[in-house]
Amino acid sequence: MRIHIQNPPGESLFPVTRAQWDAALARCPALGAPDVSFADDDAGFAAAIGEAEVLLTWTKVVRARFVDGGAAAMAPRLKVIACTSAGLDRLAPFDWLPEGVLLLNNRGTHSAKAGEFALMALLMLATHMPRFATAQRAERWAPRFASLLAGRTVCVVGLGSLGGAAARQARAFGMQVIGIRSSATPHPDCDEVHATEALDQVLPRAEFLLLACPLTPATRGLLDRRRIGLLPPGAKLVNMARGAVWDQDAVCDALQAGALDGAVTDVAVPEPLPPGHRLWSTPGLVVVPHVSSDDPATYNDRTLDILFHNLLELRAGRPAPNRVEPSRGY
Amino acid sequence: MRIHIQNPPGESLFPVTRAQWDAALARCPALGAPDVSFADDDAGFAAAIGEAEVLLTWTKVVRARFVDGGAAAMAPRLKVIACTSAGLDRLAPFDWLPEGVLLLNNRGTHSAKAGEFALMALLMLATHMPRFATAQRAERWAPRFASLLAGRTVCVVGLGSLGGAAARQARAFGMQVIGIRSSATPHPDCDEVHATEALDQVLPRAEFLLLACPLTPATRGLLDRRRIGLLPPGAKLVNMARGAVWDQDAVCDALQAGALDGAVTDVAVPEPLPPGHRLWSTPGLVVVPHVSSDDPATYNDRTLDILFHNLLELRAGRPAPNRVEPSRGY
Repeated sequence: MRIHIQNPPGESLFPVTRAQWDAALARCPALGAPDVSFADDDAGFAAAIGEAEVLLTWTKVVRARFVDGGAAAMAPRLKVIACTSAGLDRLAPFDWLPEGVLLLNNRGTHSAKAGEFALMALLMLATHMPRFATAQRAERWAPRFASLLAGRTVCVVGLGSLGGAAARQARAFGMQVIGIRSSATPHPDCDEVHATEALDQVLPRAEFLLLACPLTPATRGLLDRRRIGLLPPGAKLVNMARGAVWDQDAVCDALQAGALDGAVTDVAVPEPLPPGHRLWSTPGLVVVPHVSSDDPATYNDRTLDILFHNLLELRAGRPAPNRVEPSRGY
Repeated sequence: MRIHIQNPPGESLFPVTRAQWDAALARCPALGAPDVSFADDDAGFAAAIGEAEVLLTWTKVVRARFVDGGAAAMAPRLKVIACTSAGLDRLAPFDWLPEGVLLLNNRGTHSAKAGEFALMALLMLATHMPRFATAQRAERWAPRFASLLAGRTVCVVGLGSLGGAAARQARAFGMQVIGIRSSATPHPDCDEVHATEALDQVLPRAEFLLLACPLTPATRGLLDRRRIGLLPPGAKLVNMARGAVWDQDAVCDALQAGALDGAVTDVAVPEPLPPGHRLWSTPGLVVVPHVSSDDPATYNDRTLDILFHNLLELRAGRPAPNRVEPSRGY
């Protein structure tokens, strides 16, 4: 098997290194010793892609080379494109994906870090930290007291790697966890799970609402102005999904009016958020620059472990656990 | 036994009510049925204090009526003054305390809430949230990535109700916990405990330093400029103790210079912090208006339970667990 790893040029924090590769192979002796090549430039890509059967790379590289650049024609042997991101919405629609090539995402790499981030955001919201941050900007000492997380209700939308980790942490702190996902299948860390169609019935109970679903045609604009109006007074929001999953302007309006108590968002439209954008200065809104779920200390180790696990499953004739289904978008 | 409860005038969130009293008595049948009176004004205080054996009230009431107002002369039968605060530094020195009157603090009421606050602050610091807050004020998108809490070292100064709860949460997230207290007695939630004299030797290992000690003559200015210089580069601070336990200006200087990565403080000198004070605008510093450890949903229930437990211990001839030792200041 011939695997090519294309790091983005100038990637200083997260490039996959040969040392990481060697360590991952040592953890997975069953994989044998595939041929591997590394590159971060055009020449290296061109030299390797013609023979590569598996390409491990960044979403933005796939976007530039395949979606916009037609690299499929250069890659006659390619069987698998593995992306280092979990959410591949920037590659949709998937009509650029060559016939017979499997697209894998990186679901699973992010869960430990995402769980800590989710818990932090829930604790910050329970403590009114977003309102204190607004008061600090105005140099205003404005105490508001707050109770524990225990016994309070959080609705987690999306129960994949991120949402599942969030549910687990919330549950450990005694919260009542309502999960929302495409089907109402039970989840071990949720007290209840409902299908997306039942969201409207759940929202009036959601003092905390945490978005952790993939961005797909079905979830774009999911938390719109009407649904924000269904939340209880003083509700608190976390967005770890994508900025387009909620109506940003409606969220800002509700925070401004005090209908929502606070929000912590790791995502925005657009990213990077430009100076002067309304999100920066909306009262009760904490903006985090898309770092919630990426732990540099473990990211590439987990990424390679997940890739190798998928390759072994494929070799055994089983479905790849991280396969992206183009028709549903995740 | 005759107990008087003096609520501060205009207290809307935390006044002790007769319903709370009745519920607490029902939880503690061994106490019997003491006479109780409630007041929030001068007339009510004057009418009750002459007969009262136990006074339950706020630190600021004790300050106004006893320290500054000489109420001891009006209270010939008084045996116990129980304060609803844990830290009674605002009553020091304790030379106003009448001979034979026991002073009780409210240690224990705050632990669950304080533990959640401490964990939130550690997670915020690990995630660089104070720096993101500074960047948000400047409308600047500036990602920095971060790892989990697991395996990182926190030094907790003070292992009472707050520090003990902080240590427990940090430990549960896999942190290495070094405790500092007056003596080096082991603590179940610390990997190591050292006496205050060993602080200088511990600081170079303290990526996270959490202050949760009482303010006494021994701890005033404990974290001074010299000791801040002993911390590792990029260290992160939490202050849940009192603003005077650290050198505020030295902390601000180190944050400004980037020697410290961030700080979350629930306390300040003075409180309330006035507009224009340097703390508000120091980069990497999150100011919280002294709310870290007070849960209005449970505060008075816990306060009464702790008072009743102390009264039963005294009745049995044992020392009161919440007794403040005037000579050490807590």
